[in-house]
Amino acid sequence: MEREKSFNFAAGPSVLPVPVLERAQKELLNYHGSGMSVMEMSHRSGVYQEIFDDAKFRLKALMQVPDSHEILFLQGGGTLQFAMVPMNLMGPNGKADYAVTGNFSGIAAKEAEKYGSVHIAADTASGGHRTIPAQSELSLSPDAAYFYYCSNNTIYGTEWQYVPETRAVPLVCDISSDILSRPVDVSRYGLIFAGAQKNMAPAGLTVAIIDKSLAGRALPITPKVMDYGVMIEKDSMLNTPPCWCIYMLGLNLAWVQEQGGVAEMERRKKERAGALYEFLDNSKLFRAHADKSARSDMNVTFRTDSEVLDAEFVRGASARGLLNVKGHRLTGGMRASVYNAMPMEGVAALIDYMKEFEVMHR
Amino acid sequence: MEREKSFNFAAGPSVLPVPVLERAQKELLNYHGSGMSVMEMSHRSGVYQEIFDDAKFRLKALMQVPDSHEILFLQGGGTLQFAMVPMNLMGPNGKADYAVTGNFSGIAAKEAEKYGSVHIAADTASGGHRTIPAQSELSLSPDAAYFYYCSNNTIYGTEWQYVPETRAVPLVCDISSDILSRPVDVSRYGLIFAGAQKNMAPAGLTVAIIDKSLAGRALPITPKVMDYGVMIEKDSMLNTPPCWCIYMLGLNLAWVQEQGGVAEMERRKKERAGALYEFLDNSKLFRAHADKSARSDMNVTFRTDSEVLDAEFVRGASARGLLNVKGHRLTGGMRASVYNAMPMEGVAALIDYMKEFEVMHR
Repeated sequence: MEREKSFNFAAGPSVLPVPVLERAQKELLNYHGSGMSVMEMSHRSGVYQEIFDDAKFRLKALMQVPDSHEILFLQGGGTLQFAMVPMNLMGPNGKADYAVTGNFSGIAAKEAEKYGSVHIAADTASGGHRTIPAQSELSLSPDAAYFYYCSNNTIYGTEWQYVPETRAVPLVCDISSDILSRPVDVSRYGLIFAGAQKNMAPAGLTVAIIDKSLAGRALPITPKVMDYGVMIEKDSMLNTPPCWCIYMLGLNLAWVQEQGGVAEMERRKKERAGALYEFLDNSKLFRAHADKSARSDMNVTFRTDSEVLDAEFVRGASARGLLNVKGHRLTGGMRASVYNAMPMEGVAALIDYMKEFEVMHR
Repeated sequence: MEREKSFNFAAGPSVLPVPVLERAQKELLNYHGSGMSVMEMSHRSGVYQEIFDDAKFRLKALMQVPDSHEILFLQGGGTLQFAMVPMNLMGPNGKADYAVTGNFSGIAAKEAEKYGSVHIAADTASGGHRTIPAQSELSLSPDAAYFYYCSNNTIYGTEWQYVPETRAVPLVCDISSDILSRPVDVSRYGLIFAGAQKNMAPAGLTVAIIDKSLAGRALPITPKVMDYGVMIEKDSMLNTPPCWCIYMLGLNLAWVQEQGGVAEMERRKKERAGALYEFLDNSKLFRAHADKSARSDMNVTFRTDSEVLDAEFVRGASARGLLNVKGHRLTGGMRASVYNAMPMEGVAALIDYMKEFEVMHR
């Protein structure tokens, strides 16, 4: 399959901007005349430190991270954060509120039970995770160590359309699949984290942005490299960081800046998702999975009424270079993940195919 | 600096074979006609599963891993293993023996104290970590959950020349900086692990090889993604693995196989390190740091008697494209890390420079 004829709708790891990949390719053998690949550089070297600082600086600028917060480059994915969050923030005999609106917030709540008491502030499972609870539906504990939610549910294709109000209780948010897709008021959060492999960089890097006043209270059983306080002190370099992924993040952040920043990313995501939902709402064959009030602009989930047709659609899409539109096994059907790097022409090609498919099968 | 005129002696992340980097560069935009970069592939896709299986298969073949053992691809570096090992193997109210022969085994022992009792079976700190204890010098506990050591000390340039005999007590070894440099009888170990960034792949991947009979006994506070038993069951894919690093590992393993496998790697390392130590032993200006009985073939540490000359040597080396020969801050002096990917001509160029420098400064 030729690169220029395919579009990758995978939910993560997922599409990266072609100019970013081209630059990585060009620099791969010999980065800026250093005589080394970025993959071969000591993380303690000056040349690598510049790459690291550049990525961090660009992220701080793009997300307008206030000085009260620190950016960390970690490993282990969101799944390790599911343990790191309670280990660091729960406190001894602590409790925390969790809103369960999909697969990963459910896993996070279960993991947290190892380190303290978990109160389920909301659970949308009974409705197939098609909705997001309203503020008035959240069961909040005034004495919770933190309130945890996942802003975008990759599998079910729902997204929080507002930031929960939790008063003095710090907000913790898994923002893996919609980071950099819209402006975020970081100052409202105690902690946000994101696996990089959806909207930022290759898999193997986790970005965390933490209110520094929350660090330094990890449980005694916390591994040193999982202590946010230690990692703040060491500027993410207690040990060797995932150097290549941080380099790729920097290239991608430069691309986002060149394109116009997160405001432009937000305009484009609304254009991409808007076109898909408009088609779905007018289709007689396809229907969207998520409730209208809770639709994700990053992961558009949809289906026909027939599993046989769904499978045929996925096969046909792949043959046309519309890759990875099969839905997650938990939901079935189809899913088009339309992250920052997905061009509008990819969305247009998918809609064209949906139209043809609908004509053929009605 | 032109690539072909430089040699990178960094201790890790470190040099990779040029043909491996060239192949990665060639395939970067569009892997095998898939229309995707490896960095963009879903870890659940067929095309990526083949890459994953290929790397695992090659490692199993190269290291002759018996069926009793499982290969895991993890994240977090050796530093996370320092916690994972006791969390998984210590057991409730357990104790373990640690041989402290350098910086990282010392850190590992300290981390393990969070999860059980640590007995120091040996400590070479008083001699500046220039030696490795003999079997008879090890203080072994018959009831230890495991015996832990680090086979090669990157910072001090020492290496265990034998495998400790611990009878029924499982051996756990941090083999980060000499994995793939010599044949290893994996069946003798309960667990070996290695950060990939020294002799295998870019930073961000940790390889663990575990006797499956030791898994499944993790402490209740173990994060799910840090439970060897869970990761065995999920074939390292509980969550998204560091896909690109695993791909690079596969390319590097193919290169090792083409060159003649670990036996040939061992021949070459003896040739590289042998030439350096021979020069050092005959030098009137330079001297080796490690005791002759404990010298590492991977990290050759040396110095003059003058810190001023040491600094001048390092500057001059860099100007000639002999990169990163400065010693670690804990030892000072110089360090030439000569991993698998370092060609003999790099070693020859370094020795030529040392000769010239000696003539100039005696």
